[in-house]
Amino acid sequence: MAEEVFGAGGASASTEEVARLAGVGVATVFRHFPTKAELLRAVLVRRFDRLREEASVQLGAADAGAAFFGVFRRLVADAPTKIAIGTALFDADQESPGQTKTGKEDAAFRASNELRKVVGALLRNAQEAGAVRDDVELPEVYALLVAMSRAAHRDAEVRERALTIVFDGLAPHRSL
Amino acid sequence: MAEEVFGAGGASASTEEVARLAGVGVATVFRHFPTKAELLRAVLVRRFDRLREEASVQLGAADAGAAFFGVFRRLVADAPTKIAIGTALFDADQESPGQTKTGKEDAAFRASNELRKVVGALLRNAQEAGAVRDDVELPEVYALLVAMSRAAHRDAEVRERALTIVFDGLAPHRSL
Repeated sequence: MAEEVFGAGGASASTEEVARLAGVGVATVFRHFPTKAELLRAVLVRRFDRLREEASVQLGAADAGAAFFGVFRRLVADAPTKIAIGTALFDADQESPGQTKTGKEDAAFRASNELRKVVGALLRNAQEAGAVRDDVELPEVYALLVAMSRAAHRDAEVRERALTIVFDGLAPHRSL
Repeated sequence: MAEEVFGAGGASASTEEVARLAGVGVATVFRHFPTKAELLRAVLVRRFDRLREEASVQLGAADAGAAFFGVFRRLVADAPTKIAIGTALFDADQESPGQTKTGKEDAAFRASNELRKVVGALLRNAQEAGAVRDDVELPEVYALLVAMSRAAHRDAEVRERALTIVFDGLAPHRSL
């Protein structure tokens, strides 16, 4: 719920708004999350966890290629929400720098890293199935995923056409 | 000169620093650029203009494919500097909102658009030469360029490997 508010409204959503939409009192929200940064961090972690769970289901898919490309597309499509929450969190952390948690200690960083591991496993599955060329590795594939995610605010049709080019680039080499 | 300072130091570079490196008095800088935002905008426009000039030279290249991919790679490599200047400009504009110039009136926007046109011409040349598949158009190619540019702070080797995947995706379809 908080996820929907912050995802849509970004930094502009107030804790009061979150409480109203969740149907609880503001006091309840503040008891669990004393600062806006803590609330936002919990929202972001929850989002990464959900995406990881969704992606994990695909580890057992019959078509490993479709599973990998499907998760890639899903993560790019979800990116504007994550970026909005992440930006709001960054702003909230700036406002109360004493409580800033950055780097590897950060729960959101850990949750994001768990998602990355699942993407790595999906990539290996797709490579073993011959759906993705076997000379690519996770760092560059994840760099492409991040790159496409950051440009994901663009026109959906253009995004899809750009993704198609990337997916073609990831497909096994075809001899001329 | 200002370009080097702001490109490297981002928002942290002071007008005094720019003046010192340019070997002129601060008064001279302020006479030409009364606000930091104006100075930064001029720096950004100049950078876009230079990149456009460099790219334009490639319009007459014998190998249109190498010209297109070379300019693509060059623009991605240059991106961290442009992003640093752009971020500093955004911050400076926020500090003096009365003088903010945004959207199509903005000189930096126009300069960026001129660069985009040259990339479009290089793309057409490369497609006519058979070096880039002819079913792609400038919007998705530019979306990829922007996407790769935003991820350009990453490890240079990973960036190169990610670029290779994109370039393979842009190459003409090879039949299986």
